[in-house]
Amino acid sequence: MSANPIVMDGWYIGAWTDEVGRTLLQRWICGRPVCFYRLSDGTANAVEDRCPHRRYPLSLGRLGDDDVITCNYHGYRIDGQGTCVGVAEQPDVPRNARVHRFPVVERHGVVWIWPGDPDRADPADVPDLPWLADEGWTHVKGMVPLKARQVLLVENLLDLTHETFLHPTSIGNAAVAATPIEVVGEGNRVSFIRHMIGIEAPPFYRSSMGVTTDIDRWQDGDFFAPGTFVLNIRIAPTGTEEPEGFHMKVFYGMTPATATETHDFFALGRDYRIEDRELSEFQLAQQLAVMQEDIDALEVQEVMVATDPGMVESSIRSDVAGIRGRRLLDKMVKAEAAARGEAPARPARPQRPAAAAGGQAPAARPEPARQA
Amino acid sequence: MSANPIVMDGWYIGAWTDEVGRTLLQRWICGRPVCFYRLSDGTANAVEDRCPHRRYPLSLGRLGDDDVITCNYHGYRIDGQGTCVGVAEQPDVPRNARVHRFPVVERHGVVWIWPGDPDRADPADVPDLPWLADEGWTHVKGMVPLKARQVLLVENLLDLTHETFLHPTSIGNAAVAATPIEVVGEGNRVSFIRHMIGIEAPPFYRSSMGVTTDIDRWQDGDFFAPGTFVLNIRIAPTGTEEPEGFHMKVFYGMTPATATETHDFFALGRDYRIEDRELSEFQLAQQLAVMQEDIDALEVQEVMVATDPGMVESSIRSDVAGIRGRRLLDKMVKAEAAARGEAPARPARPQRPAAAAGGQAPAARPEPARQA
Amino acid sequence: MSANPIVMDGWYIGAWTDEVGRTLLQRWICGRPVCFYRLSDGTANAVEDRCPHRRYPLSLGRLGDDDVITCNYHGYRIDGQGTCVGVAEQPDVPRNARVHRFPVVERHGVVWIWPGDPDRADPADVPDLPWLADEGWTHVKGMVPLKARQVLLVENLLDLTHETFLHPTSIGNAAVAATPIEVVGEGNRVSFIRHMIGIEAPPFYRSSMGVTTDIDRWQDGDFFAPGTFVLNIRIAPTGTEEPEGFHMKVFYGMTPATATETHDFFALGRDYRIEDRELSEFQLAQQLAVMQEDIDALEVQEVMVATDPGMVESSIRSDVAGIRGRRLLDKMVKAEAAARGEAPARPARPQRPAAAAGGQAPAARPEPARQA
Repeated sequence: MSANPIVMDGWYIGAWTDEVGRTLLQRWICGRPVCFYRLSDGTANAVEDRCPHRRYPLSLGRLGDDDVITCNYHGYRIDGQGTCVGVAEQPDVPRNARVHRFPVVERHGVVWIWPGDPDRADPADVPDLPWLADEGWTHVKGMVPLKARQVLLVENLLDLTHETFLHPTSIGNAAVAATPIEVVGEGNRVSFIRHMIGIEAPPFYRSSMGVTTDIDRWQDGDFFAPGTFVLNIRIAPTGTEEPEGFHMKVFYGMTPATATETHDFFALGRDYRIEDRELSEFQLAQQLAVMQEDIDALEVQEVMVATDPGMVESSIRSDVAGIRGRRLLDKMVKAEAAARGEAPARPARPQRPAAAAGGQAPAARPEPARQA
Repeated sequence: MSANPIVMDGWYIGAWTDEVGRTLLQRWICGRPVCFYRLSDGTANAVEDRCPHRRYPLSLGRLGDDDVITCNYHGYRIDGQGTCVGVAEQPDVPRNARVHRFPVVERHGVVWIWPGDPDRADPADVPDLPWLADEGWTHVKGMVPLKARQVLLVENLLDLTHETFLHPTSIGNAAVAATPIEVVGEGNRVSFIRHMIGIEAPPFYRSSMGVTTDIDRWQDGDFFAPGTFVLNIRIAPTGTEEPEGFHMKVFYGMTPATATETHDFFALGRDYRIEDRELSEFQLAQQLAVMQEDIDALEVQEVMVATDPGMVESSIRSDVAGIRGRRLLDKMVKAEAAARGEAPARPARPQRPAAAAGGQAPAARPEPARQA
Repeated sequence: MSANPIVMDGWYIGAWTDEVGRTLLQRWICGRPVCFYRLSDGTANAVEDRCPHRRYPLSLGRLGDDDVITCNYHGYRIDGQGTCVGVAEQPDVPRNARVHRFPVVERHGVVWIWPGDPDRADPADVPDLPWLADEGWTHVKGMVPLKARQVLLVENLLDLTHETFLHPTSIGNAAVAATPIEVVGEGNRVSFIRHMIGIEAPPFYRSSMGVTTDIDRWQDGDFFAPGTFVLNIRIAPTGTEEPEGFHMKVFYGMTPATATETHDFFALGRDYRIEDRELSEFQLAQQLAVMQEDIDALEVQEVMVATDPGMVESSIRSDVAGIRGRRLLDKMVKAEAAARGEAPARPARPQRPAAAAGGQAPAARPEPARQA
């Protein structure tokens, strides 16, 4: 059976800026334990969380004023580069003792990390989320752990028709599923555009915006593979011209913890009533409630996928974005394997023929592995 | 290491009649998730509990008045045949989108299901348990989950000498182990006959029947492979002629949930004091207590088998029925593999020679797999 | 991936004398379930805890006055040799029905067991711990379960520099890490000598001995592969000549339960204030507190090792004893495999070159297996 591969060469959110400080933080990223902390000059730093001596987590050690971590098992001293600069047991420094230091970029309140080959990490590729630091915007944010493989979350977000069925009491109504999307993209981006015109406002928008008339609702999603998704929302009374209306953005940072566990980071921003703390609290509670519905569903789906990894799925037109998303991930995984000189791991999957009449797109989910 | 195979081609109890209604019920049967429900005309129905779209459980969806299940993730609509009849996202119906509909037969209060090849399912082969619906009988029933492979339960029931040791405070006494059985059978049936004559009544029978004198106790067991066992019990003061005496029947429906988990369905029937609700409550409590002793033992045994799957067991004459039972299962598994064109999975096992002096029957337990 | 092998041919502590009586005790030793009990004549006995009939644990059965265990599932009767001497179901005895009886030696309050090939078990090789029964000494003892592979505990004890970092509030201070060891050994023994002269007393010794001046602290450790470690401690005001001073010994019996679980037996003895029960209670509490710090660390380390089994570790001079210890275990495992006629399981590992300047010893940890 083939593996459930993870894209390693990519910028993922590792932590929020305010999570990283002088207290060592362990977080698993793409199957690797990472020790996050901040150097004295304020720079966010991330090293492999295994002491080069006996693999004890550095995050259980002590960070000194000299930015050196002392391992709490036998006292190896690791500097910000990940290099051992001394031990208590002997005056000479162990040769070649070092741990991996991950490429890190901090921008707009996000600590981005590159878990793969550092030679391929280009800070220019870090997803740009200026609204997270824009004074004209405010946002609520957090992270929720998800016991499901990352691709299921990617597909969840690239096919928002599920709002109609899974979130009918908050953000979903019949208009979402009924409104076709336009799908575009290039490079590592897949985008969809769904403009719902003259529809009834779903419960969440009625309560958080006070909208009672019919609305135009725009849902424009951008997936930047491997782990970033931004949903651009515009809500306005029907017929209102841009730039009027309420604007919201939802950022999802989908960072694999392991092959079947995902950190589900989120930030929900808005450009209206930005001083309204009560509204922020309401939106955070609402967002967490919606995400819990997704998490419950995705964790069940993980079981169903893991116990029948070979099933060929049926797809329809609204799956086009999701299928492009998973194909992009699949392609990146293959490119990484090729870069490492590995033969492709998986043969071509049997696929359903494209359905002219039924409108089915061929399914191309990577074969997931059964989990132990 | 070989697998711990399950017979797929056979009628298993999937549920009691009163468990199946207009509320969708998920139950794993032989490693497959099944969604049980009842159509508007009252027919029990069972389909694979994975939406053909993205594998989400249909049992979490909504059953409409038109007998169509709407998947709660993206709204695929699945009719009673398991066929997708529409989606909310587009007017045309996805082609070839369907889930497996299992052969189901409902009879005498039992919903039988055939988890294997539907072409081999013959309703004429459904085990016949008319006493479950006979007005001259009453019964108590239920189901208890067992974390052990099904064959261990089959052997438990086909060798009731364990009553002497495991159930001494209820249904066992020395007479059970000391009384040899006669074993007969043909086709998919293995039967044993144990007639204990002039013995002391075990505690359960003394209390539930008020018998104080010596009794004749008949224990005639019928195993219908792969998953049905009926124990026919007759208790009467010693020397009483048939048809006098107390008659009881215990049905066990042994349905594999997975390779190492089993649904242990039971019904305990009697033809005397059938209006006595207090007696029914006593018998149910007693039956559950006895089953808990078995479950505790079988779950321990599962660990011991899983951690030493290759051990060759010693057997004695009272094991003849149990060994025939497991050989029957083994033969059925092999026949299914052959029907699928697979090579036999397991080579012949080393076996102890039949023991003329010691009376050992050769052990033939299928090699179980170590569990993760 | 290679296995995480266990030395089977060796004397391990199976239980303390006072744990073994007429009540059957199950304990897993090196991946095998063992039933410990005491025969009528007082001899400690240990047999495989799987009935030869259907693998049910004998330890759940009943031990009779005739020293025969009756299995509680179907009544096989197993004598002290592990031989079936009868069954209730038939007059003749099942031929060749027996379970393994483990070589056992009881000495100085310890029940030693040999889990491997009994032909290689020589009672002369049982580790000698006379102080556990010496009237001039007293001790506290116990056992703590550890969810980590045994070799990690071996290395923990053979490199006490960790006291400085992991146990700073009790037995560690800077002197431990700063004082080099001398390492000697032969055969199955690895010993280190660490004599700290004129150092401050760590908190534990100040409180338990009332020492306030500078002290000489000797830490002489003996590892007897595969599972015994004795630490010989001498504490005395600086300059005191032998035999004056406080003497303590700590025995660790490191018995693998499974490939990744270990029984961590301990006994802490002293030759002073041996009637002082309050001191004994204090020392037991202190010992358990120190062990908990080790257990917490080792269980974390187990995760880090299991998730990166191939990592080549850095080592320094203070690791020499630990590395010799694990090489000894590795050699014993290979010798056992060779004795069974197996090819060596693991190829030579890539190793770091010995570091002349940095003082690194090459790492030779056996490749551990990823755990399910």
